[in-house]
This record gives sequence, structure tokens and C-alpha cells, in this order.
Amino acid sequence: MKYFEDIAAGEVWRLDRREVSAEEIIAFATKYDPQPFHIDAEAAEQSFFGTLIASGWHTNAMVMGMLADCIKTQQLVSLGAPGIDQCRWLVPVRPGDVLSGRATVMATRPSASRPMGLVTLRTEVFNHVDAKVVQLDGVGMYGIRPSPGSDATA
Amino acid sequence: MKYFEDIAAGEVWRLDRREVSAEEIIAFATKYDPQPFHIDAEAAEQSFFGTLIASGWHTNAMVMGMLADCIKTQQLVSLGAPGIDQCRWLVPVRPGDVLSGRATVMATRPSASRPMGLVTLRTEVFNHVDAKVVQLDGVGMYGIRPSPGSDATA
Repeated sequence: MKYFEDIAAGEVWRLDRREVSAEEIIAFATKYDPQPFHIDAEAAEQSFFGTLIASGWHTNAMVMGMLADCIKTQQLVSLGAPGIDQCRWLVPVRPGDVLSGRATVMATRPSASRPMGLVTLRTEVFNHVDAKVVQLDGVGMYGIRPSPGSDATA
Repeated sequence: MKYFEDIAAGEVWRLDRREVSAEEIIAFATKYDPQPFHIDAEAAEQSFFGTLIASGWHTNAMVMGMLADCIKTQQLVSLGAPGIDQCRWLVPVRPGDVLSGRATVMATRPSASRPMGLVTLRTEVFNHVDAKVVQLDGVGMYGIRPSPGSDATA
């Protein structure tokens, strides 16, 4: 397991590729963001964007999926997150895009009120032509290493 | 249709209720945020949170669904959004919660570079016991009223 104490500012976590399909764009948006440019290819062609584009919330959900893979691979003791400090959707995500990216540890600090650590992360995700599609700044909560002899499952 | 020119600072848009089920929490998280406390009720009981909780990204997707309903009802000419300025997940969203809320127009300004308007919105969503579960600050892009005689579909 990788605990808060094992995370250092400057670390870069690689985010593996994720392909984006028109079907998934439409399925997500039908449920959560049914605006014409997210669910209707013909209406999208007439829109400001010119093609179907993913909801920014769908993009962020896919980025979270990439981060969750990375948490699992590293066996990071993630305890969730209190929010987002800033998110910029820079370039629309379109059907056929292949996303990949990185999360950079900007800072770490122990929580003042709880037995956990707080990690400030900048997550940057790019499409297959290397345009940055989203940049997300936020703080994650991570478990601290159990002291020797304590009940590690507590 | 309600255009940028029809939106005024101080307006409050009502966000209609949305029920949260364990099935939907697990389905979303399985695809986008497969951490144990989002997908496995038993593991969640042993976690920091004590029960299954919705991914914050799922909460935000549901909030977007409520906003999209509100855009449709008001016939707002929404052109999407460039990002989020701040998001705070204040209280976990759990199975059985019923969410509702409001979006308050904090400020409006014409875009300096494009024929559209920018609306700063604070979105606050509460559960059925009136605890605020999320607060989201962001900017949305809205279409401007076509001038008389112009092609309104352009």
C-alpha cells in the first residue's frame, strides 16, 4: 500500500489512455446533460461546436476513471476528495478522441483535524493530437501509515 | 427562448428534485470511479464514510441533469461552459437521498471575444434533510438575442 507519507510533491502519476465513443457521449449525456450538442449528432453539426461533443461532466468522469485506475495500480490509500479548486475545459472532447495525461503532486500536508493527509493535485488530460482538453486542480484525502502494532484495518 | 439579455444578476433558478438510488451510485462508479466506498456496500461500511456514497463526479452529473432540466424549462439558449471555478462536496450523497436546490445568477457580462454572454452561476444542492451536499461556482455561455431581420437559426 502507498500511504500519504509515501507521496511527495513533484511526483507525476501517468494516466492511461481512454477512448471516447459517440455511443458513450450520447449515453452519458442522455442521463445527465441532455443538451442537443451532446446527444444529437445532427443538431450538434448546426451548433456552435460543429460536431457532437462530450459533456464536460462526462470528460471529468472519464478523467476520474483514469485516476481511479492509477490509484489502484499504485495501491494508493485514497479516502476521496472534498472538492475541486478549478477546472477548465479547454478543447471539446469528440467521438474518436483518445485521452491520456498526467496528475502532478503540487503539495502535501497533514490534515489539521483528522488522521489523514491532503494532497494537492493538478490533473492534465490531452487528446490524441496532444491538445490539452482539461486541467483540473483539486485536493485529495489519503490515509496515513498505521503505526506499528496498531490495528491496520481500523 | 430566453437569451443572455434576458438573464439578470440576482435571479434564482429552481432545481427540481432528483432521487438517488444505490443501483445508480454503483452503476456510475463502476464505470467512472470504482473505489470501494462507491461500488461495494460492505466495503463502504468498513470505510471512513460508513455507508455507500455517491462519487462526487456522480453528484455533479446529477446536478448537471437538474440544471439541464431547468435550461429546457426556461428555454435558455445555453452554449455550454468553459469550466468550474470552485466545487465543494460538503456532505456525502447516500442511497435514498432526494436532492433539490437552486442556481443563483451572481453576475452577467458580454463576452469580449465572441457573440455570446457569460453568466456566473452559484449552484447549491441540498438533500432531503436540508443539508447542503454540494456548492458549485462556474461560468456558463449563453446565446445573445438575434437582431431583428437576421437569420435566427445562424
